[in-house]
Amino acid sequence: MDKFLTSEVLPIKSVEIKDDFWGKYIDLVNEVVIPYQWEALNDRLPDAEPSYAIKNFRIAAGLEEGEFGGMVFQDSDLYKWLEAVAYSLETNPNPELMAIADEAIDLIEAAQGDDGYVNTYFTIKEPDKRWYNLCECHELYCLGHMIEAAVAYYNATGKRKFLDIACRFVDYVDTIFGPEPHKAKGYPGHQVIEMALVKLYDVTNNSKYLALSKYFIDQRGQEPNYFKEEYEKRDGVSHFLKTKIPLDLPYNQAHKPVREQEVAVGHAVRAVYMYSGMADIAAKTNDETLKKACETIFNNIKDKQMYITGGVGSTAHGEAFTYDYDLPNDTVYSETCAAIGLIFFAQRMLKLDQDRKYADVLERALYNTVTSGMALDGRHFFYVNPLEVQPEASEKSPIKRHVKAERQKWYGCACCPPNVARLLTSLGQYIYTESNDTIFTHLYIGSKADFTVNNKKVTVKQTTNYPSEGKATFVFDMSENNEFTFALRIPEWCKNYKIFINNEEYRELDLNKGYLYITREFLNSDVVEISMEIETVLVASNPLVRANAGKVAICRGPLVYCLEEIDNCKNLSSILIDTSKPVKEQYNPEVLGGAIELKASGYIVSSESQDLYTSFNVKEMPFNITAIPYFMWGNRGLGEMSVWIRYK
Amino acid sequence: MDKFLTSEVLPIKSVEIKDDFWGKYIDLVNEVVIPYQWEALNDRLPDAEPSYAIKNFRIAAGLEEGEFGGMVFQDSDLYKWLEAVAYSLETNPNPELMAIADEAIDLIEAAQGDDGYVNTYFTIKEPDKRWYNLCECHELYCLGHMIEAAVAYYNATGKRKFLDIACRFVDYVDTIFGPEPHKAKGYPGHQVIEMALVKLYDVTNNSKYLALSKYFIDQRGQEPNYFKEEYEKRDGVSHFLKTKIPLDLPYNQAHKPVREQEVAVGHAVRAVYMYSGMADIAAKTNDETLKKACETIFNNIKDKQMYITGGVGSTAHGEAFTYDYDLPNDTVYSETCAAIGLIFFAQRMLKLDQDRKYADVLERALYNTVTSGMALDGRHFFYVNPLEVQPEASEKSPIKRHVKAERQKWYGCACCPPNVARLLTSLGQYIYTESNDTIFTHLYIGSKADFTVNNKKVTVKQTTNYPSEGKATFVFDMSENNEFTFALRIPEWCKNYKIFINNEEYRELDLNKGYLYITREFLNSDVVEISMEIETVLVASNPLVRANAGKVAICRGPLVYCLEEIDNCKNLSSILIDTSKPVKEQYNPEVLGGAIELKASGYIVSSESQDLYTSFNVKEMPFNITAIPYFMWGNRGLGEMSVWIRYK
Repeated sequence: MDKFLTSEVLPIKSVEIKDDFWGKYIDLVNEVVIPYQWEALNDRLPDAEPSYAIKNFRIAAGLEEGEFGGMVFQDSDLYKWLEAVAYSLETNPNPELMAIADEAIDLIEAAQGDDGYVNTYFTIKEPDKRWYNLCECHELYCLGHMIEAAVAYYNATGKRKFLDIACRFVDYVDTIFGPEPHKAKGYPGHQVIEMALVKLYDVTNNSKYLALSKYFIDQRGQEPNYFKEEYEKRDGVSHFLKTKIPLDLPYNQAHKPVREQEVAVGHAVRAVYMYSGMADIAAKTNDETLKKACETIFNNIKDKQMYITGGVGSTAHGEAFTYDYDLPNDTVYSETCAAIGLIFFAQRMLKLDQDRKYADVLERALYNTVTSGMALDGRHFFYVNPLEVQPEASEKSPIKRHVKAERQKWYGCACCPPNVARLLTSLGQYIYTESNDTIFTHLYIGSKADFTVNNKKVTVKQTTNYPSEGKATFVFDMSENNEFTFALRIPEWCKNYKIFINNEEYRELDLNKGYLYITREFLNSDVVEISMEIETVLVASNPLVRANAGKVAICRGPLVYCLEEIDNCKNLSSILIDTSKPVKEQYNPEVLGGAIELKASGYIVSSESQDLYTSFNVKEMPFNITAIPYFMWGNRGLGEMSVWIRYK
Repeated sequence: MDKFLTSEVLPIKSVEIKDDFWGKYIDLVNEVVIPYQWEALNDRLPDAEPSYAIKNFRIAAGLEEGEFGGMVFQDSDLYKWLEAVAYSLETNPNPELMAIADEAIDLIEAAQGDDGYVNTYFTIKEPDKRWYNLCECHELYCLGHMIEAAVAYYNATGKRKFLDIACRFVDYVDTIFGPEPHKAKGYPGHQVIEMALVKLYDVTNNSKYLALSKYFIDQRGQEPNYFKEEYEKRDGVSHFLKTKIPLDLPYNQAHKPVREQEVAVGHAVRAVYMYSGMADIAAKTNDETLKKACETIFNNIKDKQMYITGGVGSTAHGEAFTYDYDLPNDTVYSETCAAIGLIFFAQRMLKLDQDRKYADVLERALYNTVTSGMALDGRHFFYVNPLEVQPEASEKSPIKRHVKAERQKWYGCACCPPNVARLLTSLGQYIYTESNDTIFTHLYIGSKADFTVNNKKVTVKQTTNYPSEGKATFVFDMSENNEFTFALRIPEWCKNYKIFINNEEYRELDLNKGYLYITREFLNSDVVEISMEIETVLVASNPLVRANAGKVAICRGPLVYCLEEIDNCKNLSSILIDTSKPVKEQYNPEVLGGAIELKASGYIVSSESQDLYTSFNVKEMPFNITAIPYFMWGNRGLGEMSVWIRYK
């Protein structure tokens, strides 16, 4: 298809991770999360809400009698699980697991209609109402996740069945929606199909899929507004509430054409998924306007709407973005899925523009919010990742009830756990990109990756104990010499670093947008080493962030730290950190399997009065502050937590 | 009725107010609010939501065809208006207004059923469903307001018609609810009838009314729980939402018998109205257990759940109390009506126990939140009285949308404006109480009040320019000498004061629970003067109030001050006050008709970076802070406001 140029920047497919930090998470996903979620999908977890996902497919396939259960988009849980399974199988062969997955795929096929349609809700419950409510009912969202899983499964196993199921469904959808006059002008209520179709195009090379993705991007927010028309047709009645509710176009990112959108708005997960799709289409079609829109929105998030943990979504009302600098710590949403979506977006922006700002955000979300999302047992999850928690408030304050003070088991709406699983099993895709014979290193993660540079194979073995330390070593394994560029991200937090090539300091520092470019003829077994100084620093917010006025956060390298009640005291708001004193690092093997704790000097406010209001006469007593990495919080029982600390 | 003892503590009935501060408010109520609200009740205000109140009565009376409009408890708006009219007529005769009120009373009578029942909603819309949903439908609440208005109208005019209407309705209710085995065990969803019936008892001397009030107090929260039974009967379906919602007994203060309640919970207005009724019954029946429960709850509010402005209700969800020390400034509710209810409660506690803590709270709520509730034009009102406002947040943050940044016109659910009107027109009732031949002065308000002490008439003329200054002068007008005690409240904020009798300093300071007792033989034209030093002070919260950590409020006498954007700058959270420097007072005749402004030294945080997060390097520039009285805020256009200010 001529009008679409294939981007020359591709993520690296075959990456094997061997990393102290991430290895245990990936093992956890393989050994605990994936089997556990399979039990969940089959409603076999005691004391957890049933998923209904498999049961729905069995009913839709005519294998079982019963009622549809769960959310209208429940199918997506199975697809996300299958996607995680696929990534897992890619690096971790497991015939038993593959057999289970194959059976699940057979079940999906059995539930597929002759026309290609697959959606257990509509098949079981409202067969005559297909597509009547795109805004809320998420058929295209489920299809998006199906495609992503099918592509991953094909890539991992070479088996085509699932891919064929997905293609049949897409081919059918393509007869219904599209720019042609006879087709409906719809687009998804919950985005994801946009980026999924680009993946489908990548494996099938069928430009129809890319065109359909581009259509969904282009059509959104155009006049006459499809959601408005659809809303009027259904008389404003909400699928969920069965009553009239107002239509909120900005909430659905459908208030104007996407190229005119400048600010992240609405449901946070849908937003970042859409921006990811926009970036994909911008890359595939060399669309500068779309690229510019992506960068403008990315900057808006990074500069005005992102928590220091890389979380996004400031309100639980609609799990949504709010407005610039509105970043409340205690009524926050910061959904794990939204951080994952932001990672998707940043990764795609890195393909358009090798600027470290994208990788810095990616790293921030990955090391803080994604890791916070899952307990160290792999069985409990945070959907909401607050920056300040008081258990009594979570229990009693109506505006904080969504902020759980402890990670929960599988939820009824179980988006986050399978999303964490599929991200961690595919983490290898985020370490490097390759462009014009340059290998870009975005993340410091122990791994082995294969590249083809100048048509020659290059294997890069990275070893590191990041983020505990800032050293990473790259060994180049090649059968012949090869001249190319190897680029290393210098993270924004890193003020001092050194590069060594074969143990000699490399001083020709060719730095561009935060990437250090090393161009030379690489020989087999060459060793490149980067040594970044990791300092503990106090970080302040822009003064326009009211929630953080008078407060600092403690950060060490990519990790944001936090205070927990168990290490400090009740009422963390009574603690002040002394900014004039150094913060000391101390490895504590006893805490959560080993962690670098930070010890700071400070004060605690004490009051002699029991009164609610008294003449100002504040007493401050010396206090030793202990901070742990944010992602580790909430693993030692109920208690307060705070990222931002008052300073003196 | 033998078992009920009449309390010997009574508020003073006939008080005429002549006061610089309050006079203009009372004039505003008489000249603007009462006529304006009459237009509102008749749906004659352009650009305001219709009230439907009069129309509903006309339909119920068969004078007009149509549908019921407004809330199920819309009738109460007319009653509250009539109560305000009654108080107004008492001190401000107005034959035209009385004629309008008489017509409205005729209309109420026309809408009354033969059995005495009056409720336009049920009469028009669901005549078969009387009393089916006491928890939500508020028939007893409407009756409570009818009684209060009828008693006030009788006291003001001597006309019995309205009182007779109310008695007929109560007599009917008394056949339905009560402790006798054949009667239903219901009680109101929205309290107010408890205190109303005590007033009815006071004017009629019919002990049946006191007994019915006591029954409502005693029965609430008893097992088997009436609301639970009623809820089950209607299958959990909510009157408002037409769908099942959970029953929340603490929200309805019906989770346990009232004597066992120790903490203020649930809907704030209903709660404080109920506590007022409890205090009334405790006084009338000398019930020590009930009195103790009242004091425990009052202390809980005062010590743990009250804003510095005297506002209560920390959440918009259900307009309710939350939990101890949860006093967010920006997501606050602090409804004007709740502050008024707290004043009712405090006033009644003062009859049980002459402790200044009650009057201090009364004064705090009156001078800050009640006054804040109404614009200086008498036509715009705050329902929610926030302590921190950012207009953008009110517009865009889902958890702050209830916090209006500007006072609004008459609302659909118009509880607050008529409540303000009835409080201000009856303000004379709050200045003094009399007990055992002691006259207690609770408030410093220019006025003339008549007492009967030792069976002799005593008129006390108070002159003062409080709260601008702390001097109040009392002249005793008597036809003969009289030995009695005159007690003056020394407000908690007052650290230095002097008393003069006939220009000579009085040094026998007999102080008890914050009241200074002067016992002597008073002669005609004796002059007692109190001179309280009004200092500007910085006030800190208990450290357990997280929202105020690191912050102070500025207070001057009873007035809480605040910063407004117009006098300072945008982003008030970037301002710090220097606690080591004195705060200066400066009268500004240009501001809002004249106000004592406070000028403080401080700093403003400036940032060179546009970044969201940067290494800690805060620059503080000197800044001159201007504060105005809190109650005056929001009268000069849209802008930020904050009561609590960061300190350095």
